[in-house]
Parts: sequence; structure tokens; C-alpha cells
Amino acid sequence: MKRIGVFTSGGDAPGMNACIRAVVRGACYHGIEVYGIRRGYSGMIAGDLYKMESHSVSNIVQRGGTILKSARSKEFMTPEGRKTAYDNLQAAGIEGLVAIGGNGTFTGAMIFGNEYGIPTVGAPGTIDNDLYGTDYTIGFDTAVNTALDAIDRIRDTASSHDRIFFIEVMGRDSGYIAVQSGIAGGAELVMVPEVLTPISEVVETLKQGWSRSKSSSIIIVAEGDDEGSAQEVAEKIKGQVDENADIRVTTLGHTQRGGPPSAYDRILASRLGLGALEGLMGGQKNVMAGIINNELVYTPFEDTIRLPKPINEDLLRMVKILSV
Amino acid sequence: MKRIGVFTSGGDAPGMNACIRAVVRGACYHGIEVYGIRRGYSGMIAGDLYKMESHSVSNIVQRGGTILKSARSKEFMTPEGRKTAYDNLQAAGIEGLVAIGGNGTFTGAMIFGNEYGIPTVGAPGTIDNDLYGTDYTIGFDTAVNTALDAIDRIRDTASSHDRIFFIEVMGRDSGYIAVQSGIAGGAELVMVPEVLTPISEVVETLKQGWSRSKSSSIIIVAEGDDEGSAQEVAEKIKGQVDENADIRVTTLGHTQRGGPPSAYDRILASRLGLGALEGLMGGQKNVMAGIINNELVYTPFEDTIRLPKPINEDLLRMVKILSV
Amino acid sequence: MKRIGVFTSGGDAPGMNACIRAVVRGACYHGIEVYGIRRGYSGMIAGDLYKMESHSVSNIVQRGGTILKSARSKEFMTPEGRKTAYDNLQAAGIEGLVAIGGNGTFTGAMIFGNEYGIPTVGAPGTIDNDLYGTDYTIGFDTAVNTALDAIDRIRDTASSHDRIFFIEVMGRDSGYIAVQSGIAGGAELVMVPEVLTPISEVVETLKQGWSRSKSSSIIIVAEGDDEGSAQEVAEKIKGQVDENADIRVTTLGHTQRGGPPSAYDRILASRLGLGALEGLMGGQKNVMAGIINNELVYTPFEDTIRLPKPINEDLLRMVKILSV
Amino acid sequence: MKRIGVFTSGGDAPGMNACIRAVVRGACYHGIEVYGIRRGYSGMIAGDLYKMESHSVSNIVQRGGTILKSARSKEFMTPEGRKTAYDNLQAAGIEGLVAIGGNGTFTGAMIFGNEYGIPTVGAPGTIDNDLYGTDYTIGFDTAVNTALDAIDRIRDTASSHDRIFFIEVMGRDSGYIAVQSGIAGGAELVMVPEVLTPISEVVETLKQGWSRSKSSSIIIVAEGDDEGSAQEVAEKIKGQVDENADIRVTTLGHTQRGGPPSAYDRILASRLGLGALEGLMGGQKNVMAGIINNELVYTPFEDTIRLPKPINEDLLRMVKILSV
Repeated sequence: MKRIGVFTSGGDAPGMNACIRAVVRGACYHGIEVYGIRRGYSGMIAGDLYKMESHSVSNIVQRGGTILKSARSKEFMTPEGRKTAYDNLQAAGIEGLVAIGGNGTFTGAMIFGNEYGIPTVGAPGTIDNDLYGTDYTIGFDTAVNTALDAIDRIRDTASSHDRIFFIEVMGRDSGYIAVQSGIAGGAELVMVPEVLTPISEVVETLKQGWSRSKSSSIIIVAEGDDEGSAQEVAEKIKGQVDENADIRVTTLGHTQRGGPPSAYDRILASRLGLGALEGLMGGQKNVMAGIINNELVYTPFEDTIRLPKPINEDLLRMVKILSV
Repeated sequence: MKRIGVFTSGGDAPGMNACIRAVVRGACYHGIEVYGIRRGYSGMIAGDLYKMESHSVSNIVQRGGTILKSARSKEFMTPEGRKTAYDNLQAAGIEGLVAIGGNGTFTGAMIFGNEYGIPTVGAPGTIDNDLYGTDYTIGFDTAVNTALDAIDRIRDTASSHDRIFFIEVMGRDSGYIAVQSGIAGGAELVMVPEVLTPISEVVETLKQGWSRSKSSSIIIVAEGDDEGSAQEVAEKIKGQVDENADIRVTTLGHTQRGGPPSAYDRILASRLGLGALEGLMGGQKNVMAGIINNELVYTPFEDTIRLPKPINEDLLRMVKILSV
Repeated sequence: MKRIGVFTSGGDAPGMNACIRAVVRGACYHGIEVYGIRRGYSGMIAGDLYKMESHSVSNIVQRGGTILKSARSKEFMTPEGRKTAYDNLQAAGIEGLVAIGGNGTFTGAMIFGNEYGIPTVGAPGTIDNDLYGTDYTIGFDTAVNTALDAIDRIRDTASSHDRIFFIEVMGRDSGYIAVQSGIAGGAELVMVPEVLTPISEVVETLKQGWSRSKSSSIIIVAEGDDEGSAQEVAEKIKGQVDENADIRVTTLGHTQRGGPPSAYDRILASRLGLGALEGLMGGQKNVMAGIINNELVYTPFEDTIRLPKPINEDLLRMVKILSV
Repeated sequence: MKRIGVFTSGGDAPGMNACIRAVVRGACYHGIEVYGIRRGYSGMIAGDLYKMESHSVSNIVQRGGTILKSARSKEFMTPEGRKTAYDNLQAAGIEGLVAIGGNGTFTGAMIFGNEYGIPTVGAPGTIDNDLYGTDYTIGFDTAVNTALDAIDRIRDTASSHDRIFFIEVMGRDSGYIAVQSGIAGGAELVMVPEVLTPISEVVETLKQGWSRSKSSSIIIVAEGDDEGSAQEVAEKIKGQVDENADIRVTTLGHTQRGGPPSAYDRILASRLGLGALEGLMGGQKNVMAGIINNELVYTPFEDTIRLPKPINEDLLRMVKILSV
């Protein structure tokens, strides 16, 4: 393999730049040429790519976002779009790809690989940690710490005013951010998509806290919870708790996607970027590089896309014990 | 004066603890006894007060919120409530008060002072910086930095995806947080309650950025802007800009109220706490301690409540120049 | 088991408070009484202990340091000291102990356990991550992020001035902090106690960077490196590199021990605190609770004390590739 | 004026990039061409300059360091060096300069201006806040907050171990960083170059704290204090305090120079950058732009270089009161 391409696709995540850097520096180290493709599949179709050198990735390890940018591409979902993309890669002499992103990214790569035989190895970049085939995804640790910083701030004001706060964190299908930031933030309850938490349980938890004279409470709601958004959950419990209860809602939103990556994410991203590159060099294709139990593993795209990643029920149990 | 009371009231602000510390340590230094009153006027009515010593305020200078807690009191708005409060203070031998809070707090103190003659000196604690009589209020600098940190994070993701972001910051009647975080965050436009920004100007700004091939834009909206919330402004501009424009909204919310106070806020809070105490000792009453042009000044509550604090128009002009 | 004691000992580490909280809340949950022993073995001898309730550990999960304080105890190294300690525990009806600390702490606990049969389960709290029997220790992730934040700041100034920086991080016997913060910080080289890095290699690395026109370089030195402190290494290379090279040294020092624990450390500390408690309840003794490959395991104190924890050589290899 | 140059010189400071941005964007706004000169006077002599556009300063407002780099130039101290610099500026058609830096920078600019008549307006960029002619310099607020963050971390460990910490902060001739971070960090004592603090006073303060059963103490030492470095001060007091006192020393070092600028510094830098540019356009020369009492003022280089900036003695008094 003489020349490869690297791109980011889907929602950006802190650590994507560290991953790009590892791919580029690793390629330089192994004597392989590497091209950066801008805006994912969209740039592949537009032919928006450029040769990257070691210095192209200087001073980016600490930056959030992605220097290669990201975009959704409807065109790539069409055979014509993929044909153009393939022609562009052929013209540029690109023999393999490293794709940094999530399930949407890998679905595209799998279809593309099946059609045109171009080998792709993925690196899991998404704050949601919802990918089968790796213990953690790039960006998750940073997102949890960002959410936690917000929870810590809100606790200051919650306890100064004896308030109940419902805080919504990201996670449309996954409660990972909610559970981890909830435990770390000392939340009374965590509501996640994977487990049904009826409103009656929320009310009960708040009443118990009240009876132990806890003066403030924090409840974390993953955006994809069955009972609805934090705002909706708050509406539902109003009237079921002490009428003097001062209830507030905060939705953390897009701040969770950005910021300088944590040490953990930079190291994970470096390992996965290098792992993806070296997998590609070693003949892997249509797989995602992941770290499971501290070992580098390659999982077929098919599995990462199809298989669910169960949430750690021990952690949910822990939330209850720790908020006694 | 042998014995005084100190309390926090209204919305909490980072630096209130540093201010309490300065009042308590200053009192110890000057040989005056000091009582902490919990939950503002509410605790004054409930008689919830305790003697504070030097060590009562150890290790709090760095904490957000207020160790004396804060609450609203409807009872204090009644003559009966104030009578009870006065009786409690009398019983405890309290001869003067330091009140840390905003306009609501000072209105209460002024009425109370007029009725019962108990001298009160205020210290301005509110993140909004909307008080006449001081250049800056306790908590404002921290709130701006918290908002800025969020803006920095959002810029990562905005520029990775070529998005337009509307970010709502606190400020129901005041655009201070919006203007300062907007300039510091490199925003394209800042919308504040003090100045009318028609939707047409927002659209124009975005189009101009587009024509200079700016791929992402950030617009800061103070919550009290005439055009409505960030969400409402975003709705209004949809359809008037490029149909491919990817528009997102984030509301920063209560995270802006908490967190460890910045150096600026801790020093300001210390100066104002000590200034309020020494003013009280020196015979001041019904005034708020403030810092104007780096000098300690006392402004009658009447003026701080009645007079508007104009926004710095130079800063608004600067937003336009810097986003060229 | 009706009543247990908990204490922290040795150097403090961020997350110790989260661990104490998990022990106390877990004990409340399981209906066991728990006493906090202040200043480790020193307080055990002085009889400085108090009953802890659920609210004793409210609002501490986010704080660095340890509310139970820590100290070294020469007395506990004597049979008389241990006898007094035992008598105090007996008098208080304490039937088991959770010890949060490092190897020194566990050595004490092991001897004490052998002499008096009082069962102790340890939780690994040390920023150095140098304990056999757990993948990570409480405080390590926070320390790495603190070091990383400093490295990021120094990179700003290094690259503005084209400087070479030698940065010393903690780790007397262990290069974990150095390696992880070095990879995450984009260092050119990392010098650790576990692997000999001759000065000639440092010089060679700097010269290579120079020839690729890298204008600034960062080298991380663990305090226990064979070539000496960062200051000493810097002295040794002077004269061997470009005479115009502007070489600076920074020693990060005790800042690495403090600060609010990261999400990772709070969760790890919660799991290990609860794991230690539930181990003790289940009959474990003279063992340390650890997490290996995401599973809770108990390792005899004897092994945690005696066995070395090898550094991940893959990570050292990665430093070289990534600084190409 | 059709075309100007901008450069940074001397030690870098957080906010310099925000200042460069304001100069460049302001020039674009006013229809003036602007060239960036790399590495200060050194690049002026080497002819290392390039045309800057609005987008040249995109996405830099949040970054520490300086994109124009900085260096010392011995050559510029010679008439020949300055002649070459002038010839290069002439050749490039540059009619005026904005110089961002400290006293060394302005001394160079003054001599150069006197010799060749090229008008220069300065913007004060230095973390030390030691420049006459402005209340605050660019980078000072960030440096204080960085030092404060370290002090907060160290307090965690100091109070966990009942230790005395001597913390050295930057400030060779100026105690500004020491005083502000000391007040904000709750230090027991602050030692600054401007005021003699005899060792006996340090000992006395520690003993008093001891007698009030303060278990830990923090003393801030500016690097230029008359009694020597923090290490030297610590050596001197050993033996004069309780023999069991556990005394530690930390030198914060270069971390204070870097990092993302605070909101305050970005706004100050923007105002001063724009102020310097508009001053230059309005005919100012050989002056430094500053902000005094919230007003933009221009002070002759001669005065900023010659006149001392006194430290606020009120703040030193406050340290004593607050550590009671």
C-alpha cells in the first residue's frame, strides 16, 4: 500500500484531530503517503483532498473539532455519488481509507467497500459511546467531563437555593453519558433510554430525599429517554412533589461536542488512529479498530452496525446506592 | 457597633462566598461580632442565624454558590414579616447588616431600614452586572468566562460542520454578559435588550459572512432580547438565509451561575465585602458599596434601584469591526 | 459485620473523597455503621474517629484532597503504636477497615491484620498508578489531565519562541504520568524510570526535529528518571545541541496532586470504594480492591506490595511514531 | 496611511492573538492594508513579513501564544540592524507599525522611531502588568487565573496534610501576580519586590496561624522578592517554626505564560489592538495605547519605560485582614 486517504464523517467529537494526527504521523513513519479528504464522503465526491505531511498535523492534538471537517452527504447514498467518489480516489491513486466516525460513517464505508473493493478501516469517533466493538469511543470521556463540569456548576446554585434540577445530556439511543456523568456528579437519579424509569420512581426518589432532608436534588435525563426530554419529565412530576419545590431544567446541548480533548481521549484516539492505519497496512478491511480490555481488536463493520452495546447495569445500581 | 449580621439574597453568584469571608474576617480583625443569617430575609424571619468565627469561612473563597444559602421571601414583603425579622435581630443584639445581592435585596433593605432604622450596607452580587453604582458586580466576570468556555466549545463544532449557531446567554434586562462573551468569543453579532437589532440585520450579517466565505457563524442572544429567545430568533431567520444553512440553537442556562469564581470576582468580592463592612462601621447606611474607576464608592440604595446602567456602546461597535 | 472504619493514608489523591463517599453511602445502604478515622494510622492511635452518616459525605464528590486528612505515622511502625490503635478500634467496636492509599498504607494494614486479625480491604488511591492489582489507581487520570493542561499551556509559549522545554512530572518509580501526558501532549520524547533513555538519544531526537524544521520541542521527564531531574537532563544536553537553542525547564510539582477529580476518577473511586466495602462484608481481608479489564478483583496486599507493575511498552513506541 | 505592519515582541502573553486580530480586522474595516511581521524585530531585519487578510486571524482569538511568534534581536540593538529593518519596511511600503509587547519592545520602537521617523503605536502585552500607562496589560488576568488554579489545587493537598506551602509566581520586578493570586487564593502572606517582608514577619505569621490552629498555610512569593526565591525563603524559615511543620515549595514557572486567554484579556486585547490602530491612523506616534479608568489613553513610550507602576497598597493590607 503506497497511498491512503483519511477522513472524518458524522458528528464531530473531541479527539478526532488526535486520531487524524496518529494516522498521518503513522503513515509518515511507515513510509506511506496520506491524503486528507475534506468533509467526509461529500469531499470524496467533490474531489476535495490534499496531501498531508508530518507538519500538517502539528499543534492539533489539543484541539476539539476536526481539521478535515465533517458533513453529511446525501449524494453518497446514491450509486452515482459513490461512483464519482471512487473515480476520484482512483485518480488520486488512493488504495485504502481510514474512516473516523460512527455507525453512519461505517455503513457508508461498508457499502462502498462491497461495491468497489477499496479497503477501509474505521476508528470510532462519537461522543455517545454507542458503538459495539470498543469499550470506549473517541470523544466520550471529554463529553462526560464537559457534562460533569456543568453539573458541578449547577450543584452550586441548586444547593444555594434548595432546588431540584433536571439536567438533559446528550444520548439519543444511549445512556452512557448520562450514567457516567450522573455517578460522577452525585446525581439522585439517572434516566436512560436503555432502562424504563417510570415517573412514579422519579417522584418517589425525590420524596425520599425530601424525607432525609436533602435540600437539593439533581436528576440526569438522557435526551432519548422514554419519558421525554428533561423539560417534559419536569412537567410530568410537577404537582406530584412538594408544592414549594423549586424545579429547574437545563439542557446542556452542543457544548458537549467541543473543547480540548481529555488525556484519555487523546491517547485512545492515538491508539485507534495508529491501530486503524496498521490494520489497513496489514490487510484488514471493512472493520473498525477498537480497544477492548486494553487490547486492540478489529470488528467487522457489519457487527458494529448491527449489534447493540449494552449499558453497564452495575453502574445504574451504583447510582441508587450512592444517593442514599 | 458591637455585633452585625450578614446574609445573601436573590439569585446566587460566584464570589458571594469570598464576599461573606471578607465580611467575617474583616469583622474579626476589627473586633466586631458577626452572625450569619441563612436564606436571606426568610432566615431573618425564621430566626435562623449563627455566630461566625474566622474559621467559619475557611476554605470557601474558591467555591461557587453561597454557604449562607439564598431564598425569596414573600413574608418579608409584609409589615408583619418585617416586624418579626426586626424582633429577631433585636433579640440577637444585631446592630447593622451587610446585605449581599441585587436590586430586590436592596429594595427590601431600604424599606426595612426606613421602617426600623437598622443600618444596612449592600454588596452587589449578581451575575448580570445590571446595578448602577459599580463598574462590575460580583459574579459577572465568572459568568462571562463560563459562557465564553461554552462558546469556545461550540465554535469547535460549528466550524467543523460549517454551521450557524445561535447561543442564548443570561441577561433578562441587561446585555452585559452577551456583549462581553460575544466580543471575547469572536461572535458575528450580539443581540441585547438595550439596543434593537432587527431580524433583517441578522440576516444581512449572515449573508455578508457567507459572501466572504465564512463557513460558520456564531450569534449571541441575551435572553431578554426584543426579538425573543435564541430559539425564536433562529425560527425567524430560517428561510431568509441560504436554504442549505445548518442552523443550531443552544441555551446556556444555569451553568452560568455556578463554578469556582474567577480571580477577578474573588478580589472584587473581597474588596466589596470589606468595603461594605467598613462603611457600616463608619456610619454608612442604606447604601451599596461599589467600585468605580478602581475607587470604593457608596451609592444610596435609592439610586442603585432607580437608575439604569447603560451598556458600553463602544463595545457593541467593536463587535461589528472585529467580525469583518 | 456491624461497624467498620474508613481512613485515608499516604499522599492524597483526587478522588479519595469520592471513594470515602462510596464507602459511607454503601455502608448506610447495607445497614452498617461507619466511622471515619482522621489522619490515617496517626488518628487510629490518637483515637480520632467519628460516626459518619449519609450527609457527612454530601457535596464532597467533586473535591480534591481528603476530608479525613492524611498523615504519616512513625508510631504505627512500632508494636506499641499498633497496640494502641487496636485498643481504640476495639473500644469503638470497629470490626473491619477500608484503607484508601498506596503501598505504604497497605504494608501497615497487612502487618496490623496479621498481628490483630482485624480484616482490612484496601482501595488504591495514589496519583502514580504504580500499584499491581488494578489497571488504574484513584487520582491518576486527574493527575495526567492536570499535567496535560500545563503541557498545553507551555506549548503555547514554546512554539511562540521556538523553544525546547523539559517538563518534569511526578513519578518517582513509575513513568505512567510521564508516558500518558507525553502522548496526549504531543511530546517529542518521554523519559521514564522503567526504561533507560541515554542523553545521546535525547540529543539525537532534538537534532532530528531540528532537521525537519520543528521549531519547538517538548520533552517529558519523570522525576525518577535515571538521568536525573529535568533540570539535570537539560544541563547535560546543553552544548550538545544548536548553540542558539533556547532551552527551558519547568517542574510541575504539587499542583498534580490536587484539583477536582475527573469523571473517570470519581467513577473509579466510587466503584473501588463500594467494591472494598462489599468485599469486606463478604469476608475478604488483607486484599486490595482493583479494576482489571473492567472487572472488580481482589489482590492480596502481599502481591500489590511485592509485584512490579510494568509500563505499557506499546505506549512508549507510540511516542516515537507520533513525534515523527 | 495605506499600509501598516504589526508584530509581537518580548515574552509572549495570552491575548496577543486577540490583539493581532483586532489590528488586522480593524485595518480591513478601515480599508488599510496590514502586514504581519514574524518574530518581532528579528523578522523586520530578515524581511519576514506577509500580507494579512480578515481570514488570516480567524479562529485565533481563543489561543495562547502569538501566531506572529516572538524573539529577541541583538541585531536590532545595532544601527546596522535597524537600517536593514527600515529598508525592508520601506521596500514593503509600510508607513506605520503596531508593536505588541513590553518595555523592551517599546524601547526599540522609540529609538527606531527617533532615527527613521516611522510612527509606532504600542499595545501593552505582558503577563507582569508592570507597565505605566495602563491599568492592566494583556495577559495579566489570564496569568493570575492560571496561578490561582494552581494555588487552589495545592490548597487541596496542603489542607489534607496540614502543610505549609511556599508558592513562587512570576514577577521579577512586580508583585502584581503575587498580590492578586494571593488574595484570590486565600494566602496567609504575599511577598513582593515592591515591599520588604522580613523573614521574621513570615515566621510570625506562621506562628500566629498555628496558635489559631490553622493547620495549613500558603505563602505566595514573587520571583523577584528581596528575600530570594520561594525555595530560599523556605530554607530561611526552617528551624524557626514548629519542628514538625511540613514545609513544601512549588514554583509555578512557564505555565503562567500560556493557555487560552480569559474573557477579560480578550476584550482588553481587542480594545487595545483597535485603539493602537486607530491611534496610528489618527496621527499618534511613539506612544502606547492603554486603558485607565475604562478610558483609552495614549502614553509616550518615554513615560511607559521610565515611570514606575506602583503596587496597590490597599490590596496588600487586605491580605493581612483576610488571613486573620
